[in-house]
Amino acid sequence: MAPNEKGPVQLSIEQKVTEDMEPSFLEVVNESHLHAHHAAMKGVTNKETHFKLTVVSEKFQGKTLMQRHRMIYGLLGDELQQGLHALTLKTKTQTSKLSFPFLYFYNMVNIGIVGVGLVGSELLVQLKATGAKRLNVVGMTTSKKMVVSNTSYTSLDLTQWKTDLQEQGVEANLGVFAKYLSDSPDHSIIVDCTASDAVAELYPSWLQLGLSVVTPNKKGFSGPLSLYRSIESLAGNLNGTGKAPFAYYESTVGAGLPVLNTLADLVRTGDKVEKIEGIFSGTLSFLFNNFSSLSGENKGTFSENVKVAKELGYTEPDPRDDLNGMDVARKVTICGRLAGVDLDLTTLPVENIVPGPLQSVASADEFMAKLPEFDDHFAKLNEEAKKENQVLRCVGLVDVKGGQSGVKLLRYPGSHPFASLQGSDNIIKFTTEYFPNGLIIQGAGAGSAVTSFGIFSDILKIQGRVE
Amino acid sequence: MAPNEKGPVQLSIEQKVTEDMEPSFLEVVNESHLHAHHAAMKGVTNKETHFKLTVVSEKFQGKTLMQRHRMIYGLLGDELQQGLHALTLKTKTQTSKLSFPFLYFYNMVNIGIVGVGLVGSELLVQLKATGAKRLNVVGMTTSKKMVVSNTSYTSLDLTQWKTDLQEQGVEANLGVFAKYLSDSPDHSIIVDCTASDAVAELYPSWLQLGLSVVTPNKKGFSGPLSLYRSIESLAGNLNGTGKAPFAYYESTVGAGLPVLNTLADLVRTGDKVEKIEGIFSGTLSFLFNNFSSLSGENKGTFSENVKVAKELGYTEPDPRDDLNGMDVARKVTICGRLAGVDLDLTTLPVENIVPGPLQSVASADEFMAKLPEFDDHFAKLNEEAKKENQVLRCVGLVDVKGGQSGVKLLRYPGSHPFASLQGSDNIIKFTTEYFPNGLIIQGAGAGSAVTSFGIFSDILKIQGRVE
Repeated sequence: MAPNEKGPVQLSIEQKVTEDMEPSFLEVVNESHLHAHHAAMKGVTNKETHFKLTVVSEKFQGKTLMQRHRMIYGLLGDELQQGLHALTLKTKTQTSKLSFPFLYFYNMVNIGIVGVGLVGSELLVQLKATGAKRLNVVGMTTSKKMVVSNTSYTSLDLTQWKTDLQEQGVEANLGVFAKYLSDSPDHSIIVDCTASDAVAELYPSWLQLGLSVVTPNKKGFSGPLSLYRSIESLAGNLNGTGKAPFAYYESTVGAGLPVLNTLADLVRTGDKVEKIEGIFSGTLSFLFNNFSSLSGENKGTFSENVKVAKELGYTEPDPRDDLNGMDVARKVTICGRLAGVDLDLTTLPVENIVPGPLQSVASADEFMAKLPEFDDHFAKLNEEAKKENQVLRCVGLVDVKGGQSGVKLLRYPGSHPFASLQGSDNIIKFTTEYFPNGLIIQGAGAGSAVTSFGIFSDILKIQGRVE
Repeated sequence: MAPNEKGPVQLSIEQKVTEDMEPSFLEVVNESHLHAHHAAMKGVTNKETHFKLTVVSEKFQGKTLMQRHRMIYGLLGDELQQGLHALTLKTKTQTSKLSFPFLYFYNMVNIGIVGVGLVGSELLVQLKATGAKRLNVVGMTTSKKMVVSNTSYTSLDLTQWKTDLQEQGVEANLGVFAKYLSDSPDHSIIVDCTASDAVAELYPSWLQLGLSVVTPNKKGFSGPLSLYRSIESLAGNLNGTGKAPFAYYESTVGAGLPVLNTLADLVRTGDKVEKIEGIFSGTLSFLFNNFSSLSGENKGTFSENVKVAKELGYTEPDPRDDLNGMDVARKVTICGRLAGVDLDLTTLPVENIVPGPLQSVASADEFMAKLPEFDDHFAKLNEEAKKENQVLRCVGLVDVKGGQSGVKLLRYPGSHPFASLQGSDNIIKFTTEYFPNGLIIQGAGAGSAVTSFGIFSDILKIQGRVE
């Protein structure tokens, strides 16, 4: 078959859909070549396996998305048996568009929130406060209960969602939740506000349903490379197609700080990223900014500073979960992968600041009780640095060329921006061909307000991109 | 007429276009209510003045965009005489889509470059180096000569554009240039790489033609408020419709640093921006980083530092054009307007660092010769600051609530991020409700590579948003 010539399957699809659906608009595009490299297509020589159909028909009136899809698939039983592999369907009614001219302004987008703890609740507050245009929160779920809106996908009442979830919530079921969202004729975004591995593993299935994913959950992007690759291949912003669905995860690194979006811009415009270096943990930032500074102020021993951080709520319940560097390692992995380096948590060198003998003690209390025994160790490191006019900082490093990526306790001279960091700020520095002296982003990198800001920004970016 | 009921004009449009064009798809949307507030519509009670038409017809085959539009307008002479005011037209052929399934991936976007000096040339280098997908440079123009591609809008040869412009260039004509771009069935972006007021004044007309605008030229966004308002009302990213055409101008402030995109995100998500404070000028950054530091190094008098900056090419030919603060004032104005403060260059308080008696001397040479006479003045300011452990920095300030916006020579304590700035870096700090301790962006804010990076990022953002 010559390029661009219609094959028998395409002609048959066009004929059957035309006869049965009486469409006012029909577009059938053979996309088989785009899928030829997929594992499932190995050995298949058939050039008519994947099609994209856009069908505008009054016969869709009053039908859900799934019903519309069934109508089309129902027509093509023979073709599906004879080698047609998959259809991408756009099913619309003309009158729906004609009746709502406002559709031509910002596209209506549905939002479903998984996990309504601190961050999820704050996101609802921000969405409500801005009266965000044409963003409808149509579902929310905890690990136990969920509520979804009606088949018209009208927004849930954001003034009393807690009560509604409590009183009207049904048993949580993420499969049902995702299907409800994907049945909408409008684009839907699932916002994962959990920190769950199990939820992250569902992203590929959600993307396959056409749902975009926005999340501060690091697991899907720093976990197994296979999961990341799967998400990458399905999300239009990562696979290079630029088409929905998308996966945006700015708030996984530095919360709302524009870290990943900036990195993506650098990569896409052909800049050569050489190094990404940063203080990625608010906890470790606070700890070392206080413990190791050149200003001369003595803010106490290492263990005293850990104690203060714990009391201020800056640490995990067991501070070793911060000091072990794993949270930083996840962020390094995420940045590295976006910069084209296949980092893996299982092989990334991570310096655990927890003194060896304390890594295995049973409880957080015991750890805190014994930590002062190691103050001399940290004081010595600090003094050695100070002698050279340097400070200690716990940093994450992506070394694109040199292979020195990892999490490390390093020294920085007093003139370095990392040395004058204050409070619990994050700071991330990109060293690239365009920015040989570094592009630096600094600010609060933890907390529900800034995390939610990052999520909200991602949602708006997706809304601006969907047709 | 009841809401959503079709009026006589709409019915007539539908009938005439259907009969004459035999469209395979026709969509007529009454958008009159969106224009009801326009000055031109004052006193008009007719509810059928503006329509958006999407017409898919084989009769468009082989026609330019303008020819297609004429075909539709030609049908509606009666309606136009009787009060129909304007049509927004989408005119497509079905077969063009069917033949090119790749169209469903990143949308083809045309680029026309106005001004191919340092920045424009570098942009061409970056576009060529990345082999940017589906971005076609189809035209370029200097103030004297221009070249455009053919009616198929194939990309110009980026390996020899200088020779082609020289040898095949015709007399530059921005009207012809813009019309050529707007005649393309694909979306087109004009990149204004000039610093010209006259070119900036054309943005509204370009946007009206459906062309997006990307530019590092500050004039359109910091000039008369009326020009800014006009651009704002026509650009989908600024007027809230989210629809093409767009106006992106990240590189007007801090070159490629993500300043305006971050500010836009903060504003759109409902954050309350309180203050924007920054060292917005690479020249003034270099000058004061060297002249006023706490490290104890003596890097010379003020005039000596100006001389070094001039010799390194960091200043304008007449350094007073940097020292007078006007470049910073423009950037402050741009940031302020995006944050919702109607700053105006003519009323913004700007501290001119050029000593009074030297502001009126005729030549740059004379200025440089006489500047040492004022070294004592600057040395005294510097000493006073140093006594309090502070440094001098020339900053731009947007004070959203307090009305203290302007350009000022201020003192900062040694622990402040502005105090440890190095080289000619820019640094911008947003103080907001979400970021009470500040979100800081720092890095090279001048130079053709980083400016071009900012432009390229903007182009890709638009490409990701057009249908």
